[in-house]
Amino acid sequence: MREVSVVGVGMVPFGKYRDKTLADIAWPAVKHAIQDAGVQKKDIEVAYCGTALGGMMSGQRILKSVGITGLPIVNVENACSSSSSAFRQAWIGVASGIYDVALVIGVEKLTKFGGGTLPLEKEDFEVTHGLVMPALYGMRAQRYMHDFGLAPDTLAKVAVKARAHGALNEDAQFRKPVTVEEVMAARAVAEPFTLLHCCPSGDGAAAAVICPTEMAARFTSKAPIRVLASEVNSGRYMTGFRDMTTPEITVRGAHEAYEIAGVGPEDLDVLEVHDAFTIAEILYYEALGLCARGDAARLIEDGDTSLGGRIPVNPSGGLLAKGHPIGATGVAQIVEVVRQLRGECRNRQVEGAKVALTHCTGGGISGFDHGACSIHIFAR
Amino acid sequence: MREVSVVGVGMVPFGKYRDKTLADIAWPAVKHAIQDAGVQKKDIEVAYCGTALGGMMSGQRILKSVGITGLPIVNVENACSSSSSAFRQAWIGVASGIYDVALVIGVEKLTKFGGGTLPLEKEDFEVTHGLVMPALYGMRAQRYMHDFGLAPDTLAKVAVKARAHGALNEDAQFRKPVTVEEVMAARAVAEPFTLLHCCPSGDGAAAAVICPTEMAARFTSKAPIRVLASEVNSGRYMTGFRDMTTPEITVRGAHEAYEIAGVGPEDLDVLEVHDAFTIAEILYYEALGLCARGDAARLIEDGDTSLGGRIPVNPSGGLLAKGHPIGATGVAQIVEVVRQLRGECRNRQVEGAKVALTHCTGGGISGFDHGACSIHIFAR
Repeated sequence: MREVSVVGVGMVPFGKYRDKTLADIAWPAVKHAIQDAGVQKKDIEVAYCGTALGGMMSGQRILKSVGITGLPIVNVENACSSSSSAFRQAWIGVASGIYDVALVIGVEKLTKFGGGTLPLEKEDFEVTHGLVMPALYGMRAQRYMHDFGLAPDTLAKVAVKARAHGALNEDAQFRKPVTVEEVMAARAVAEPFTLLHCCPSGDGAAAAVICPTEMAARFTSKAPIRVLASEVNSGRYMTGFRDMTTPEITVRGAHEAYEIAGVGPEDLDVLEVHDAFTIAEILYYEALGLCARGDAARLIEDGDTSLGGRIPVNPSGGLLAKGHPIGATGVAQIVEVVRQLRGECRNRQVEGAKVALTHCTGGGISGFDHGACSIHIFAR
Repeated sequence: MREVSVVGVGMVPFGKYRDKTLADIAWPAVKHAIQDAGVQKKDIEVAYCGTALGGMMSGQRILKSVGITGLPIVNVENACSSSSSAFRQAWIGVASGIYDVALVIGVEKLTKFGGGTLPLEKEDFEVTHGLVMPALYGMRAQRYMHDFGLAPDTLAKVAVKARAHGALNEDAQFRKPVTVEEVMAARAVAEPFTLLHCCPSGDGAAAAVICPTEMAARFTSKAPIRVLASEVNSGRYMTGFRDMTTPEITVRGAHEAYEIAGVGPEDLDVLEVHDAFTIAEILYYEALGLCARGDAARLIEDGDTSLGGRIPVNPSGGLLAKGHPIGATGVAQIVEVVRQLRGECRNRQVEGAKVALTHCTGGGISGFDHGACSIHIFAR
């Protein structure tokens, strides 16, 4: 297997683009990634497009609009991990030597669907009985607060941190900071969550170009960002009383990713993690090994994971502030860490960042922690 | 790259399963493929699930129902080529040495969607102006009949052949033979097509297990069916007046697949091609090189492509008789040729078949012949 690097990234600000087609939302991200990489359209040998709800032929429609046709295009769906799973398919193609230059797209238009669930989700027993994502994570939050004494205002501080970071990111859906009081006073969604504990619905797109590391200098003078690990997993079925506050698929995936990359959590300088709800970020600190079980609150209280702290998490604003157009999120996380590792993030730059991790998990299925989880580790 | 073989296949009869979930439709196909391959559940290292309209986490939902969880599962969408594209992803994974044993699933439940188009197809200019698939192929048929003098009753004979083959296949949606007169007299759909010129809507699933050829004997005493070429392409944008009767993506894909496989059309013993409409089979005879341009009618009239003929096409009944649950079709074609190459097809067996081709194309996009096309070549 060849070492693979990201050589170009691009994204559009996440937000609401009700009047745009999926292709019109996505093509600027693709264009920016290609220009950033310095590749020509004809250099691109394969494209993978991650989308959960974009509809048939999303990748083909997007690439037609930028004049890239005739190459193999494959659309990948893995719920919230759609485009991070697409990234792994592209990585496999390049690492194995089948392709030299691959394009990965993440895209979603949720305004079109009104944020509703898909027809086939009606088949899931838990979902039909009310265990939609905010309810599921609300229960996890209640349990964690009970078991480890997490205070409501500490939980609110996760949202405050996200919004403070998002205020520094011109691609974020929310750029207005909020206070703990505002988070606590927002309208209730699912105990203990108010609206500001939950990521928003929205539209967006992100793209990345990868190639063998040894080939990067042909295209760009920018530092290639090496892929140390590219990992996708699905959930493991668990019967009986589950440990609701241990995200099993993330624990397992992180273990595998660290082993493949030859680094540990202590080596990370910056992370983008799947903070779909405030409690999610707390759980993932522990699952990813940033701290011991039950100690995550301290990272928030001490500012360790804020910009300027020991190990910043979600400098982009994360799902809570940058937004979460499902299929776009995985590649958007990669866009952020590539820019961080290149030192391009100006007022939200994590100084001297050399190793980064992205974590994307989702897809609610009864009996699973999650349906899919993808973890990537990158290094300058 | 390692040589890869299919070691197990399974499918469920295509038909209408309104009251079943997607998972309940698919799991028997998966179970049969695993048993046929002789692998254990724990041997399966990765799964790819092709579906166009199955909804989020289709593969995860299906595999949970057979107790296969915790492995990487990736869902692939490429319209009619969804599961054939999924097959190529699995092939890449095994050929490159990343995985040893991979499972590929194709599945669709069209009764759930009532055969309608997806929301985002409303964005396509040609589709919104009426150029849905039957209309598009109807225009191609008109043009071909004008240019090459194809007679209406010859076109009808494609459907008659499909139904005659389907009558011998217990997995076919339609098992009742029809006559030329019945085809001509059926209700009109899009000139020159009657209902019997068009593949039906339906539900179904198919599955295959692959591994390195050198490893096959560990699992099964059946002959491994070697993958000589696994190829996916997307359409090439064409402006101005297109040659409506040359399926560009199939011509290009076939050229590439023959080159990779080191065989030509003259070496093929049996094919499964994408006969979504009668004219499609005619066009693909020429695009795949089975005959010269304009000569396809003779293959039908002379019975060359019927069972017992020189080079049988669609012994399964094809899309016209076996049915076409979109995402299931690609792997279902592979199921048929694997059984043919193993000599398991009893009353529809192509005697002594050693080399086979499957061809799956689809996804209507303005300016493209098709959005995606996948061609595979197999050998005993």
